[in-house]
Amino acid sequence: MFTSDEKKRILNECTLQLFGHKHLSPKQIFKDLYENTIENEKSDFYGSGDLINNFEKEIASILGKEESIFMPSGTMAQQIAMRIYCDEKNNQNIAQHPLAHLEIHEEDGIKILHNIKTHLLGHKDRVFTTKDLQNLDHKVAAVLIELPQREIGGQLPTWEELKEISEYCRSNDIFLHLDGARLWECAPFYKKKYDEICSLFDSVYVSFYKGIGAISGAILAGNKEFISKSRPWLRRHGGNLFKLFPYIISSKINFEKRISKMELYHNKAIEIAKIFNSFEKISTIPSSPCTNMFHIYINSELDTVENALYTIAKKHKIELLPYLEKSNNQIKSELSFGDLALEIKKEEIELFISDFSKLL
Amino acid sequence: MFTSDEKKRILNECTLQLFGHKHLSPKQIFKDLYENTIENEKSDFYGSGDLINNFEKEIASILGKEESIFMPSGTMAQQIAMRIYCDEKNNQNIAQHPLAHLEIHEEDGIKILHNIKTHLLGHKDRVFTTKDLQNLDHKVAAVLIELPQREIGGQLPTWEELKEISEYCRSNDIFLHLDGARLWECAPFYKKKYDEICSLFDSVYVSFYKGIGAISGAILAGNKEFISKSRPWLRRHGGNLFKLFPYIISSKINFEKRISKMELYHNKAIEIAKIFNSFEKISTIPSSPCTNMFHIYINSELDTVENALYTIAKKHKIELLPYLEKSNNQIKSELSFGDLALEIKKEEIELFISDFSKLL
Repeated sequence: MFTSDEKKRILNECTLQLFGHKHLSPKQIFKDLYENTIENEKSDFYGSGDLINNFEKEIASILGKEESIFMPSGTMAQQIAMRIYCDEKNNQNIAQHPLAHLEIHEEDGIKILHNIKTHLLGHKDRVFTTKDLQNLDHKVAAVLIELPQREIGGQLPTWEELKEISEYCRSNDIFLHLDGARLWECAPFYKKKYDEICSLFDSVYVSFYKGIGAISGAILAGNKEFISKSRPWLRRHGGNLFKLFPYIISSKINFEKRISKMELYHNKAIEIAKIFNSFEKISTIPSSPCTNMFHIYINSELDTVENALYTIAKKHKIELLPYLEKSNNQIKSELSFGDLALEIKKEEIELFISDFSKLL
Repeated sequence: MFTSDEKKRILNECTLQLFGHKHLSPKQIFKDLYENTIENEKSDFYGSGDLINNFEKEIASILGKEESIFMPSGTMAQQIAMRIYCDEKNNQNIAQHPLAHLEIHEEDGIKILHNIKTHLLGHKDRVFTTKDLQNLDHKVAAVLIELPQREIGGQLPTWEELKEISEYCRSNDIFLHLDGARLWECAPFYKKKYDEICSLFDSVYVSFYKGIGAISGAILAGNKEFISKSRPWLRRHGGNLFKLFPYIISSKINFEKRISKMELYHNKAIEIAKIFNSFEKISTIPSSPCTNMFHIYINSELDTVENALYTIAKKHKIELLPYLEKSNNQIKSELSFGDLALEIKKEEIELFISDFSKLL
């Protein structure tokens, strides 16, 4: 077993990391922002100004929506979307996946701040289907789908299933909202442009700090009326900030840098999942990743896996997994691939994981 | 009259500005942040990490409170404070000034998101007193005071009045919260340390982008239990961001740079108000500023004042007022003084304002 000091030292000495993008310190990020900001770029001011409004227009256009609005977080973006729909239908009920972000990561803001009741679709271990919608025992104002479903390893419904859900909602007068926290990462799976994917939805939230790698930041997109209705709600939530330019500029720069790399990340995820799955004690969910992410399950004890991780980190100078947690009788972790995995050759990854598996 | 293009050109050619701090572009701010951030400073992560937690400790200590929590905006900070108090007392009523920020600038978030009823104290043109509290016809869970009262030119109650309000609330089992959006600017008036001022209140919100001049950012301070209760509410509001470091570092740097200058700003405000008030058509509220700010009222027509402003700007290369608006039969503006006014000698300001007054 390694001591806490040894662990720190070992991680510090790692030169490779299988997941994510290169870690930048605040100082390095400020340097990057300084170097990539034009001299006469003006700050936003409480949501107005060319910097924020032009970026909103650009993203709205990519998503095929009339307008969009930049917000500090997806938590406020999605509660606001749901609230607008519930008010519109005069119906305080929505439906979503049992592991939706609003259900498990927001301290029930949707319920407590907005008095909205959530109805859970299908089962937590799979994506939901039109059948789950048909089985709802309550008329809902809106349905929220997360693409990909992060909490089950980034699984995606097929394009046909997605279209069916969209058609069901439209014909049943239900608003359909897309939790696109990782939407950018979905395009290679569907082999569709973003506007075509988003055409199935009334509104979309996208994030800029997952695959894109910005500091923070979110955008909510929809039709003109919807976005106009979202503005007072943003103010109520306290999200209409004096200045958001560090997030906007960081989102812009990193979007331009990485949006074309999503297919590379996806392909690398498929390659790496295949390697993990070739060892008896290791499996991934999904077995073939839909996006740049998957969950990994290891049939072993926590101590053993931790020891194996640090042994490999010490030997090969690579950080293989970002964290470990117990999940039923297995050890679980989540991997999302970005720039760093692209720098490591398949043969090397095979060697690292093979060595790792021998220690389990 | 000046054309829109002429106005732009005139402002662009100004080398002086009576109000505020020096305007920095995003690029210049990134440079400043880069140069003033230490190499091994680590980012915050969803509210955790030394960067954010040490700054929270530092500010809590200055305010004489047990703990504090950094938030993206005061809007969320204060709604959260009020909600905690109302839940604690099982009483959905609070009292505040008719021109409190929560009353007029937050799209009624306090009422709509939190279902809290606000009772208005006294009259909109003056600060409220203990007598106004005694006259309330409803038992309230909390009272919110803004120091200084921004919407009436930054007026302040006397220390004795403030102590009386605090004692009244304590003896009547009412929580007292300080909207300290401009609290830093109040110390020269009370000639007290911040912890002594804050000892009159159960909780305090302070801002870092007014007199301090940071990009954005707020802190809510109070006792341990109160701050611990605020955390889930911050998440519900969508304010628990992935990373807040640009705001935290900017707040830290600018706080260190300007906190000792509040008395200079206050003295300059007194000097400049005196000059304005020496001209018949101009008056300030308050006549002698309590902080670094005041409102200015001009007995003239909007066109005339605007013309005078641009004439002076063209002649002396100085921007005297940030904006103009009609208020009853007068023209109104708001002035807050910072680094820029300190660079202009009294005699020069006298000349500029005298020339300006001749054109009214």
